[in-house]
Amino acid sequence: MKFGKDSKIEIIAVGTELLTPYYQDTNSLYITQHLNDLGIEINFKSIVGDNRDDLIVCINSAFARSEIIFFIGGLGPTEDDRTREVIASTLGKKLIFKEQLLNGIKQRFERRGFEMPSVNNKQAYIIEGSSVLENKHGTAPGLWLEAGEKLFILLPGPPHELKPMFKNYVWPRFLEFQKQYVARRVLKTSGLTESKIESLLSDVYPLLPSLKLTILAYPGQIELHLLSRSLESHKKADGALHDLERDLKKRLGENIFSSLGEELEEVIGPLLRQSQRTLAIAESCTGGLLGHRITNVSGSSDYFLQGVLTYSNESKIQLLGIPSDIILQHGAVSHEVAEAMAIGIRKRSASDIGLSITGIAGPKGGSPEKPVGLVFVGLSWEGGVKVVKNIFLGHREIIKSQSSQKALDMLRLHLLQ
Amino acid sequence: MKFGKDSKIEIIAVGTELLTPYYQDTNSLYITQHLNDLGIEINFKSIVGDNRDDLIVCINSAFARSEIIFFIGGLGPTEDDRTREVIASTLGKKLIFKEQLLNGIKQRFERRGFEMPSVNNKQAYIIEGSSVLENKHGTAPGLWLEAGEKLFILLPGPPHELKPMFKNYVWPRFLEFQKQYVARRVLKTSGLTESKIESLLSDVYPLLPSLKLTILAYPGQIELHLLSRSLESHKKADGALHDLERDLKKRLGENIFSSLGEELEEVIGPLLRQSQRTLAIAESCTGGLLGHRITNVSGSSDYFLQGVLTYSNESKIQLLGIPSDIILQHGAVSHEVAEAMAIGIRKRSASDIGLSITGIAGPKGGSPEKPVGLVFVGLSWEGGVKVVKNIFLGHREIIKSQSSQKALDMLRLHLLQ
Repeated sequence: MKFGKDSKIEIIAVGTELLTPYYQDTNSLYITQHLNDLGIEINFKSIVGDNRDDLIVCINSAFARSEIIFFIGGLGPTEDDRTREVIASTLGKKLIFKEQLLNGIKQRFERRGFEMPSVNNKQAYIIEGSSVLENKHGTAPGLWLEAGEKLFILLPGPPHELKPMFKNYVWPRFLEFQKQYVARRVLKTSGLTESKIESLLSDVYPLLPSLKLTILAYPGQIELHLLSRSLESHKKADGALHDLERDLKKRLGENIFSSLGEELEEVIGPLLRQSQRTLAIAESCTGGLLGHRITNVSGSSDYFLQGVLTYSNESKIQLLGIPSDIILQHGAVSHEVAEAMAIGIRKRSASDIGLSITGIAGPKGGSPEKPVGLVFVGLSWEGGVKVVKNIFLGHREIIKSQSSQKALDMLRLHLLQ
Repeated sequence: MKFGKDSKIEIIAVGTELLTPYYQDTNSLYITQHLNDLGIEINFKSIVGDNRDDLIVCINSAFARSEIIFFIGGLGPTEDDRTREVIASTLGKKLIFKEQLLNGIKQRFERRGFEMPSVNNKQAYIIEGSSVLENKHGTAPGLWLEAGEKLFILLPGPPHELKPMFKNYVWPRFLEFQKQYVARRVLKTSGLTESKIESLLSDVYPLLPSLKLTILAYPGQIELHLLSRSLESHKKADGALHDLERDLKKRLGENIFSSLGEELEEVIGPLLRQSQRTLAIAESCTGGLLGHRITNVSGSSDYFLQGVLTYSNESKIQLLGIPSDIILQHGAVSHEVAEAMAIGIRKRSASDIGLSITGIAGPKGGSPEKPVGLVFVGLSWEGGVKVVKNIFLGHREIIKSQSSQKALDMLRLHLLQ
């Protein structure tokens, strides 16, 4: 089948450094995003080193499974740069010298006051039958090669060379393959496990083929990624997405805390601002993470007054006025202390709402009665106080993260009432 | 050829989200690093979606070109999680129910006070002939499958589940394939720019071919990644690395704050503990980030007493006893207020050291005299007080991050005296 609208698409990033722990291919994200916008999806991504044999094997695999194949990198002047040569020999095609290309490369060097090193000669060779994609930001030309039923697109590795080349000379040619109009939405949820969401939505599956729902789970946050396509118009795609979103919101209710990608700390800001309420916090085991998240939001000084990180027992007594009896009797990690912390910080700061966290983040400090991951979150307001006991699983940072998530979510639900 | 020392190795990350512009596979970097430590290199990395047909094609490609194949992800409970099933059917193997696994998964839910949803049942099935890799941090068991001449290793996608599973149950089994002895060191530095470091080290290049030095720059932290290889022994590799490290330390001095990968917050812990000094902090623009970092270190309660997040002017007056005159006269972001904050928190908490941050994190709130990125960091101890004025570039989170970095570094240098 000749490449076209229904092709399998593969992106191959070439470079030994991409097989080390230190480098990641980010070019493919750029290409993916722009093709996704046309309703075109990527089927495979591959990474292979500069090793000739592995590159051949990788080309053959791609040849067997994909019709449109992007190659990123390996177009430079050094010995390690083999993409052009290996593709040509794998396809049984010649490399052809282009005087005009060589002149362009030479001029590029001259403009910078250098003579072109002889190694750059090889960049003036193109694969027989291919056309050149101009590189305005480097010496490696890109290539567009239609060979038999396949389409090969060779792009340079440096992102500042690849991006404009792709955007100006490659992407426009894909407009004819535009399949669909695409609309997207991300619904973020709290308070439900992945499996619980799955079961609540089980009869939403199977969706219409034009709709796609992906569930992504992070500690304390499950995200629903919605995608809608229409063959006719963007309006249609958006309408269908809107209906799906409404259905999901009906099922998951207040557990959905944002639908425009906002984090919890971004959601509570407008809620506090609208209701003209102020916030103060008292953190123990999270040690500042809750305040950090709240103040990551620009303008948070409108509603966030202060926080205290009462790590030691003495500081709980000193900064929050918690009677030492309560700590002695119930322990610093207890319902009672969380309650006293929330009330204490609200009263001392004269804020409308006090939010508190006390728990055992681990890995040490747990006991059979009070295991690592036991976290009490307290919320105090003028009319009352509420404390929730949680057992979080995971290592120290995950427990801290889930604790802050829970605190922000309790605040959100309170503000929605 | 049966899998072994000279095998081609491939890592396949499974998940449709990894074919979108929004997610990157980072698990493979972790696996790569640990195998590289044994002189074992990765030949191919692939990414494929949850689509059944594409997954089959990808497995077949890998089967044709690699002997050791890692699969990451797709082991969850949802309908999209198909790795186990598709590998089994591609290899013509059955899935076998394991009562013991099911009980473990059920217990995991019970510990958190939930009943196991029925969708999780499928995680109790393993591929015929495989052995289970225990997952201590999630419900998806890993699998180790030797099938014919190939080795398949199935690992869960969430990094906090994958990493310990790989480290404890997979990596040790690769010791027998060790090819080279590799020694690594990461020297982390503060207080120098990337170009300054390059000029200080310019004549260290070129290194021996068995040595490699890579400079990686992050805001507020430049890292030198050192790698040394030897065919003979770990001692040889380590010896060469040691010589290089000594040379670098001579050139960069106290700007190198760690050589075992530790972050600044991990470095200050032992310094405080050894000198039996306690710490309290007062944060304004960082809003809790400094405390969060300090308390990310297990055992930090030994030296960290308390913190205050004095976001509003009132809270600076109330919690730190700063005279309102000083704030009125110099502004909340000033040398004087940073000094008063550091002294105030030290005295009120009765700690040995007080550390303070006040600044403008932006994007709003800047002025020509006090631009976004202006941050004062203060350090108070029994014998004196010190304030450093900084201008950081970047967006809000980068300014917060650099501010906390600077505060920890000032504390470190003080403790080293």
